[in-house]
Amino acid sequence: MSNQAPHPALLIPGPIEFDDQVLQSMSHYSESHVGMPFVKTFSETLKMLRKLFQTEDPKAQPFVISGSGTLGWDQVASNLVEPGDDVLVLHTGYFADSFADCFETYGIKVTQLKAPIGDRPQLDEVEAALKEKNYKAITITHVDTSTGVLSEIEHVSKLVHRVSPETLVVVDGVCSVGSEEIQFDNWGLDCVLTASQKGIGCPAGLSIVMASGRAIERFNSRKVPPTSYFGSWKNWLPIMQNYEAGKPSYFATPSPQLIHALHTTLTQITSVPLSSRFEAHRAASQKVKSAVASLGLSQLASKPENQANGMTAIYLPEGITPPQVLPKLMAKGVVFAGGLHKQIASKYIRFGHMGVSVTDPNRSDIDTAIKALKEGVDEAVQEAKK
Amino acid sequence: MSNQAPHPALLIPGPIEFDDQVLQSMSHYSESHVGMPFVKTFSETLKMLRKLFQTEDPKAQPFVISGSGTLGWDQVASNLVEPGDDVLVLHTGYFADSFADCFETYGIKVTQLKAPIGDRPQLDEVEAALKEKNYKAITITHVDTSTGVLSEIEHVSKLVHRVSPETLVVVDGVCSVGSEEIQFDNWGLDCVLTASQKGIGCPAGLSIVMASGRAIERFNSRKVPPTSYFGSWKNWLPIMQNYEAGKPSYFATPSPQLIHALHTTLTQITSVPLSSRFEAHRAASQKVKSAVASLGLSQLASKPENQANGMTAIYLPEGITPPQVLPKLMAKGVVFAGGLHKQIASKYIRFGHMGVSVTDPNRSDIDTAIKALKEGVDEAVQEAKK
Repeated sequence: MSNQAPHPALLIPGPIEFDDQVLQSMSHYSESHVGMPFVKTFSETLKMLRKLFQTEDPKAQPFVISGSGTLGWDQVASNLVEPGDDVLVLHTGYFADSFADCFETYGIKVTQLKAPIGDRPQLDEVEAALKEKNYKAITITHVDTSTGVLSEIEHVSKLVHRVSPETLVVVDGVCSVGSEEIQFDNWGLDCVLTASQKGIGCPAGLSIVMASGRAIERFNSRKVPPTSYFGSWKNWLPIMQNYEAGKPSYFATPSPQLIHALHTTLTQITSVPLSSRFEAHRAASQKVKSAVASLGLSQLASKPENQANGMTAIYLPEGITPPQVLPKLMAKGVVFAGGLHKQIASKYIRFGHMGVSVTDPNRSDIDTAIKALKEGVDEAVQEAKK
Repeated sequence: MSNQAPHPALLIPGPIEFDDQVLQSMSHYSESHVGMPFVKTFSETLKMLRKLFQTEDPKAQPFVISGSGTLGWDQVASNLVEPGDDVLVLHTGYFADSFADCFETYGIKVTQLKAPIGDRPQLDEVEAALKEKNYKAITITHVDTSTGVLSEIEHVSKLVHRVSPETLVVVDGVCSVGSEEIQFDNWGLDCVLTASQKGIGCPAGLSIVMASGRAIERFNSRKVPPTSYFGSWKNWLPIMQNYEAGKPSYFATPSPQLIHALHTTLTQITSVPLSSRFEAHRAASQKVKSAVASLGLSQLASKPENQANGMTAIYLPEGITPPQVLPKLMAKGVVFAGGLHKQIASKYIRFGHMGVSVTDPNRSDIDTAIKALKEGVDEAVQEAKK
């Protein structure tokens, strides 16, 4: 099935399992970061990102920078808003707190709108919040990796455009791009930030951002210069424009090997209709969620409409903790993740179902994992009774 | 000699040619960033970095973060100094200007001490400058990639400790770590920042920093919090300490594949005495510099004592420009870089001689390159005469 060394299937909500060809691209021989062969690869990569985000706005701008998803927060906080500005952060888990912390580092004033664990802020609450202040941006975590809660970014974005049209719509898509549909133009999004190692299916090490023409305009009309250096679009914007246009350009050295791997996975992703990719994720997710329900277990994400399609956060039976279950799953060949939401971390586990584990018909990762989950939880419950 | 696909030898001052095993490590199957197998790899990697930097100070702290060498500047500017502080930047080329730009982004006041192109600030000039202000830090570019000028970091550091003992000694070692000797403890250095893709011999994508116990103390006694988020040691310090101690820890997702590759190259580097590694670089450099002289060409770095051992910046014959020479070298199987120092970019080329190209006796990269350089320059001169 795969020519990788034998290893347990990595089914955490990122990093995910990678395709053989993608991993082989990581071993690409060394190339100059300003030589034409690599420039062509980077150019094609940036163009394919436009397809993945379903944007045809020529003024929209993709950025691919060595880093991690977290660097996307810095890019937003230091380029799209200015010290003293207000932003509204919709909270569906751990990652909203961290994004808020990032904004505050750069002198931005944050208002968080928090939902109960397992839920998301409701549209009427968002509308009321938007009317309270002049927010320069709103952030929405599309899928919070700590809870598996899915936000309704299309509806929130349309609401923002209606009631607070000057507010930029920023989506943290670290755990959604590639596994959840995102119609960048149609939904009026201004910035989506993500990372390479989840739905996109490329090893970790890249911060990937798509900014709308409107976001770039906002950036270009800043009153003060960007407040970070490594994440500054003043430094990166001309570089990305040049690379995409096939012109060598230098600010900081990109990682040719990671860009090759990203090129390979984007080539695979864009070679089939995106709709079938998202359908495969929905189908796998339904299979997982049905299995979870049939085990008598519940999800953190409390309603069908707020459950992510690329991961499932699963409450363990009362009194059972992740260390009682995860090693059993590992022994059965699958790696799940423990809880991450501080208040309830000891009560749940997380199952990632993204990328080749759901799109490659030759892989049986999901079925193996469902079987292991059932057996592992049963064994843990039996042991606890002893 | 190598099982990599046929390709021209990459002899720019980074990225360099990589060892087969290092590239194979880039294809490592996917692992959890918080699973014990990867935690062990990361722990060993951090410990090997201490050896490479020749530090035994238990309070010194290595950092390895997804990014590039440039991110090291952000780490220094946002963690080791505070807005309003003065820093003294010794200028030996392009990269001092950029480091200064980074400091200014974070509200630091920069004084640059500039040497003529091809030289470095002299010790008496540094001493005089240090006495003019209360500098919180001094920065020295160990090897400026744009000029090939080598700074005398040991002597500058000892001078700083003598005349301005509160000033932190910061070294930009992006183009020196792994190819030039650095005795972190003995020379009293407080921070050395570097990247993976040059003397260390691992593909691009990692920012690598070593901070002294004194630097960490200075960080811990900051009056204001770190002024960047992704590069904040408040976020990263506990993570690095935990990984090194073998404990899983999470702030932002590291790149397991890049860390594996770094582990492989550091295992190779630390398996032989460091002195022989640096001697190999000095010997290769002498061979290159002798060949350059025998072609009647001169170097940007104007004196034997200020010439780097991992690269050579070579003035082309009068009237000959890089586009007249570089394609000829490429046709002969070697990739050199063009000029980077804005004032003279069209007058010179750069030849990187670091890593396996000089340490692997099975590789003939340097001899091939010297021959190609002679032929290529001769041909360009003949063509120009027509």
